[in-house]
Amino acid sequence: MTNLPKLPELKAVIFNTSLKRDTEQSHTQILLDAISNLMKRAEIEVTSFHMVNHSVPPGVYPDMTEYGYDKDEWPEIWKTVREADILIIGTPLWLGEESSVCRILIERLYAMSGVLNDDGQSIFYGKTGGAVITGNEDGIKHTAMSLLFAMQHLGYTIPPQADCGWIGEIGPGPSFGDKQENGITGFDSDFTKRNTTIMTWNIMQLAHLLKSNGGFPKYGNDRKGWEDGEQFGFELPHRSID
Amino acid sequence: MTNLPKLPELKAVIFNTSLKRDTEQSHTQILLDAISNLMKRAEIEVTSFHMVNHSVPPGVYPDMTEYGYDKDEWPEIWKTVREADILIIGTPLWLGEESSVCRILIERLYAMSGVLNDDGQSIFYGKTGGAVITGNEDGIKHTAMSLLFAMQHLGYTIPPQADCGWIGEIGPGPSFGDKQENGITGFDSDFTKRNTTIMTWNIMQLAHLLKSNGGFPKYGNDRKGWEDGEQFGFELPHRSID
Amino acid sequence: MTNLPKLPELKAVIFNTSLKRDTEQSHTQILLDAISNLMKRAEIEVTSFHMVNHSVPPGVYPDMTEYGYDKDEWPEIWKTVREADILIIGTPLWLGEESSVCRILIERLYAMSGVLNDDGQSIFYGKTGGAVITGNEDGIKHTAMSLLFAMQHLGYTIPPQADCGWIGEIGPGPSFGDKQENGITGFDSDFTKRNTTIMTWNIMQLAHLLKSNGGFPKYGNDRKGWEDGEQFGFELPHRSID
Amino acid sequence: MTNLPKLPELKAVIFNTSLKRDTEQSHTQILLDAISNLMKRAEIEVTSFHMVNHSVPPGVYPDMTEYGYDKDEWPEIWKTVREADILIIGTPLWLGEESSVCRILIERLYAMSGVLNDDGQSIFYGKTGGAVITGNEDGIKHTAMSLLFAMQHLGYTIPPQADCGWIGEIGPGPSFGDKQENGITGFDSDFTKRNTTIMTWNIMQLAHLLKSNGGFPKYGNDRKGWEDGEQFGFELPHRSID
Repeated sequence: MTNLPKLPELKAVIFNTSLKRDTEQSHTQILLDAISNLMKRAEIEVTSFHMVNHSVPPGVYPDMTEYGYDKDEWPEIWKTVREADILIIGTPLWLGEESSVCRILIERLYAMSGVLNDDGQSIFYGKTGGAVITGNEDGIKHTAMSLLFAMQHLGYTIPPQADCGWIGEIGPGPSFGDKQENGITGFDSDFTKRNTTIMTWNIMQLAHLLKSNGGFPKYGNDRKGWEDGEQFGFELPHRSID
Repeated sequence: MTNLPKLPELKAVIFNTSLKRDTEQSHTQILLDAISNLMKRAEIEVTSFHMVNHSVPPGVYPDMTEYGYDKDEWPEIWKTVREADILIIGTPLWLGEESSVCRILIERLYAMSGVLNDDGQSIFYGKTGGAVITGNEDGIKHTAMSLLFAMQHLGYTIPPQADCGWIGEIGPGPSFGDKQENGITGFDSDFTKRNTTIMTWNIMQLAHLLKSNGGFPKYGNDRKGWEDGEQFGFELPHRSID
Repeated sequence: MTNLPKLPELKAVIFNTSLKRDTEQSHTQILLDAISNLMKRAEIEVTSFHMVNHSVPPGVYPDMTEYGYDKDEWPEIWKTVREADILIIGTPLWLGEESSVCRILIERLYAMSGVLNDDGQSIFYGKTGGAVITGNEDGIKHTAMSLLFAMQHLGYTIPPQADCGWIGEIGPGPSFGDKQENGITGFDSDFTKRNTTIMTWNIMQLAHLLKSNGGFPKYGNDRKGWEDGEQFGFELPHRSID
Repeated sequence: MTNLPKLPELKAVIFNTSLKRDTEQSHTQILLDAISNLMKRAEIEVTSFHMVNHSVPPGVYPDMTEYGYDKDEWPEIWKTVREADILIIGTPLWLGEESSVCRILIERLYAMSGVLNDDGQSIFYGKTGGAVITGNEDGIKHTAMSLLFAMQHLGYTIPPQADCGWIGEIGPGPSFGDKQENGITGFDSDFTKRNTTIMTWNIMQLAHLLKSNGGFPKYGNDRKGWEDGEQFGFELPHRSID
């Protein structure tokens, strides 16, 4: 392991949106642990949440106790997301899509999209994100489309090859990390291991690059500036279609 | 227009994947022109292609004349894509999705995914990309999911809010840029104008940042290194699920 | 209103998966009410659920109290779904996709996919389904793809044009049913009203046709038969690709 | 093979939208052949098209020679689609989605959506459809969502479990029908064989049921009727949201 970069100035938050309450039974968690361990080797501070074990109601507001729910741990979880330079969302596949718990997470992240940083950018600017998806047969790309779109829409920068995961052949079958007679399911997938490694480093190094440069470049994305009439050089062409 | 950054070291390539052969009749082109003009104001060299007017067969190989087609302009077009730091894909919406011509473009880009740069990264590393989508009623987000996923999968870095476009109310109706009695359709959409501006600057500035730093950071994404046995610190956890 | 068919032998279940707890504030509910009223005019028995006001945990099992949850109303709700010939799922749009509550519903429906009817078919065979989607700007088609796919995958038959909804022009704006100075948002959309009508009648009449014919035709989809070795005439070609 | 229903009154059209020009090299074709053979056993008349070997330009008009193309075989192909009771679309997977050639097919089908039958319904009413998808690792469900949505949107009725296919474990690997040392890839997948059988019978039998009943039930979906002011019992609720 030569020249492994150390990036101690970075913080990462990792969400497992498994439907399983027992973390030990979550197949997604095994791949998330590999990512978490790699980040720690790069001296990044990692905080993990197993979403289904927190009281986080669905909704698109910062605090759902103001909308009829007794309890909402999101405001507390948000503090970590806000401080983190990196967001990793891990989800299982059901009917080829992310879990409902994953969509709750996305809704609650979206609830914060009005929060701006000191430069008038979305609070998510300068952060990087990626998606980790496991299932037994189909849907990594579909789910990555959905999750990566949501993250970049919020303000995250998405590095190359920002998704990874494992799925087996079509039909019912074992999941990633399942103990088999002749090994552990998916542990022999060079493809999964390589892509997970590439994804993790790309996310870490892009976060480092952005942070070293004082965040995402400011010009042109200052929402307050736009409201005040600044157009940053934009102009519509002087033509139309009859 | 204060402090408009000049980025003369950058090149951009813009594809219009409209189904219309007459560029003047393409609604998507009007928004692409606004982006192109803004990039030129930043002194970026811009090359544009109206795909449907080029002979580019479907397929996933670099040169389809080797697979039974008489003509293939892709190898020539590819030279521009390869040199460009920025890729903008513009598409209309049909049945809520990108055009078939847009999917031909994605297939031909994918055909080049085996090409590596001198650092063993995908040739697309260090480049940034975005999507421009217009239609008359529905599908910008769906299409952005597809296009941005494809680009990041290839190796492009996706900045925040990397899609823009215009759609009207549900049902048949005028398209972006259509001349109306009381104005031009979509030209009064502050949302479209703001998001187009933000997208364009984010793509340009991220491209500048990456180029200034010598491309996308190298460590961890060297495909040849992985093939040679380097794992860049990655390790699977020593546990499985019974 | 001439010759409005009466279909008193049919039952329908309608789910609103709004994130809003107050039914009166749900824009989706207004369109669902129009559908419900039309079904009642055809003498169909309609039962409605406002999902977010029921304790239905995420998960893919019939009863989540067996998996660590204190309460689960799904087993009770399921009785109605099981009896109903028609399923309508209504959802709002967030980030261009269905609500998390909608995905909980889909997970719980999926949890029942092992239940077979007396002919060895999935319990959902012979039933028909459709999707109702409202939002303020984008995503009806994307969401319809997801919901209709899930329904047909479970066993529902999908009639032509089985989705309807309302969205406005791109960007923030009023939602379906919002009171405006000069009318009610979306109420003037002939497109929405026509498609809602077509969808509702197509679902009702197809349900009637299937029920009149003793359910979905049996041959070829008897899962127990397949397990017992019956192949229903299926054979793979005797060739392969070198 | 007991009681295999005979449905000689039905016609089917099957499209292979492979990117490969040599039908013998198309993996998708092998599964399509199995379906075609099964249909023929039920005495259905089957016509097959290998799209990439026909001159069918992209576009959303019935005849693209009116829009600048020298040649367009679609008007001829359309005659078969119009007469067929069943439509099967087969596609390979590239980047987790259908081929560009498949999207050309969908565009050209969409081009015909203005054609009505004698009852004022879309010409596609009364027909049934399904999707066949093969690839080497991911995307059947995503692609089925897209294809089945498009078909039902046009007017096809979608029976239960109307998609089938084969994909292998994540990463590069053999495709369906590839000759291996120890067998043929995918030919041992009971899941693929069972689902293909169920899909084929469901599509055939639903087509038979609709045809036996004189097409899709008429009431409520007569577009001309709607234009003439008939509302088929539909009414919006008399309320709005403040």
